[in-house]
Amino acid sequence: MTDKRNLDAAFDSFDATWEPRVVATVNDYDVRIAKVDGDHTWHSHADTDEFFLCVAGEFTINLRDADPVVLGPGDVYTVPRGVEHYPQAAPGTRILMLEPQGTPSTGDQGDVDHVPTSTGVALN
Amino acid sequence: MTDKRNLDAAFDSFDATWEPRVVATVNDYDVRIAKVDGDHTWHSHADTDEFFLCVAGEFTINLRDADPVVLGPGDVYTVPRGVEHYPQAAPGTRILMLEPQGTPSTGDQGDVDHVPTSTGVALN
Repeated sequence: MTDKRNLDAAFDSFDATWEPRVVATVNDYDVRIAKVDGDHTWHSHADTDEFFLCVAGEFTINLRDADPVVLGPGDVYTVPRGVEHYPQAAPGTRILMLEPQGTPSTGDQGDVDHVPTSTGVALN
Repeated sequence: MTDKRNLDAAFDSFDATWEPRVVATVNDYDVRIAKVDGDHTWHSHADTDEFFLCVAGEFTINLRDADPVVLGPGDVYTVPRGVEHYPQAAPGTRILMLEPQGTPSTGDQGDVDHVPTSTGVALN
């Protein structure tokens, strides 16, 4: 069971970018939120899809073999399992993600210089 | 894989209340949205948690043994598996849900007079 949470308050409770917070769980899935800004890294998740909801700002999902998917506020998109993607974000962008617990944020890439990998951090 | 969707546009594409639309899938989970208004029914889901995000309006989750959980815009809450709940909503309320594909909207209750059960309807 997870407590009632407000997304705005949850976002306001941390400053780090590219370091998702777990705002709720659903069975063995996490609902994670993250502040994102600038470049992430090319990576993929072999075993799971990854759902994104852009809450604020602009979130671009670059893909190897297709046009970038550009998400504005209220836009949703699921990156299929195994598909390489490179997220980029405008300053102030906020996203909500859904994925199985334990899924690393950088997928098959592990730690990257500018983006330490994370499996989600508990909210305060 | 699911196409990029905008939540506002998706909500504007249908009128029915208490009849969720599938806006995205993630592995074998649905991300569903619904317009809700008035009373749902007491029910539970024996095998799954159910996640709610209030997108607009006011969504109240009545519980048998605890105070009601009242969600406003941006509030999230997960009803644990097996917990009886009775959703109620103010006019104009919009919610987003996350649950395994095939989960019936009325749980163990099947069709109810004022709330036909649904496992989610595809968006146009």
